[in-house]
Amino acid sequence: MSSTRLEEQLAFALEAEGLKQIFRQTVLLADRRAENDAEHSWHLSLLAILLSEHALDPAVDLLRVLKMLLIHDIVEIDAGDTFAYDEKGNLDKEEREQAAADRLFNLLPGDQAEAMRALWDEFEARATPEARYAAALDRFQPLLLNCHTEGAAWRRHGVKKAQVIARNEHIKEGIPALWEHAEKMIDRAVEQGHLDP
Amino acid sequence: MSSTRLEEQLAFALEAEGLKQIFRQTVLLADRRAENDAEHSWHLSLLAILLSEHALDPAVDLLRVLKMLLIHDIVEIDAGDTFAYDEKGNLDKEEREQAAADRLFNLLPGDQAEAMRALWDEFEARATPEARYAAALDRFQPLLLNCHTEGAAWRRHGVKKAQVIARNEHIKEGIPALWEHAEKMIDRAVEQGHLDP
Repeated sequence: MSSTRLEEQLAFALEAEGLKQIFRQTVLLADRRAENDAEHSWHLSLLAILLSEHALDPAVDLLRVLKMLLIHDIVEIDAGDTFAYDEKGNLDKEEREQAAADRLFNLLPGDQAEAMRALWDEFEARATPEARYAAALDRFQPLLLNCHTEGAAWRRHGVKKAQVIARNEHIKEGIPALWEHAEKMIDRAVEQGHLDP
Repeated sequence: MSSTRLEEQLAFALEAEGLKQIFRQTVLLADRRAENDAEHSWHLSLLAILLSEHALDPAVDLLRVLKMLLIHDIVEIDAGDTFAYDEKGNLDKEEREQAAADRLFNLLPGDQAEAMRALWDEFEARATPEARYAAALDRFQPLLLNCHTEGAAWRRHGVKKAQVIARNEHIKEGIPALWEHAEKMIDRAVEQGHLDP
């Protein structure tokens, strides 16, 4: 007997549950343990609700933004988390993530698999106001945690200010006021010795 | 100098980050460690996207549902997580959570503090189709994890089938088809010896 839609949806939800096991380089404020992708996705989604007035396009469709943010890292269940400043790991990142998207989203009923894949593609392409807003938050959130944990992830990997700027300056394409604020945060991190000048 | 709106919003986001430190009774599938509220909130929000076609009112406003789910447990940063089957802890739960809501949401600019508080009140009251859909997911997700971890949280606390039914049957007020499915999951858990009959 073929699975019902509900059974397929729950099978996907159980597979996606593995996002709680994908650990990132960023550490948490209170206990300095590594953050996982599920926690990161929740935090981003909360920021999306709070900061939409600052979006380059404040009329951004927040529902589509939240859908993108809630699923954007699910491919890492198969592909793993690639640290932003890992040049080697980033060479085959796209290939690994495309294969992961093919497998994971296709656990869903066909129409939902297509819808989720379209949302993920939209997020990756950063060509719509929604994707640029979502991608800006995805860059800003680790920066925020880094700045409040004495630059823990930066210092562990010897990351320099210029790399942080290059990696994050597209925040301004989605949320200009947030990039202005981020630049001040980065300067302060350098002054405090938490980021290499 | 008074804080800017953006600074107040980020201060709230940093305080809310503490949700990643509030551990629940439910355990994760892969490593059986306790789930935290941020992971739970993310997982619920994903389920909300996937299952809206099964809502009693399929025209439910999904954006409002997601906002409710993403903030519904933030009060536990101050009030702590109260286990569903802890009768003593549940006596003063409301009082503790009201005080937490007063403090936490008021870190935000006034208009957002009011909006977030209204969403949380709506979720707690379960009087709108959106709140009933959201609350059904909030009950179902731990049930789903319990059924896939040999009833770990139930067995640790000696919870019986009748308690699980009483606690969770309002799932049907939000998502009737999901409650039907949940009843079968509960019966299977009893058959497999993971839940006391």
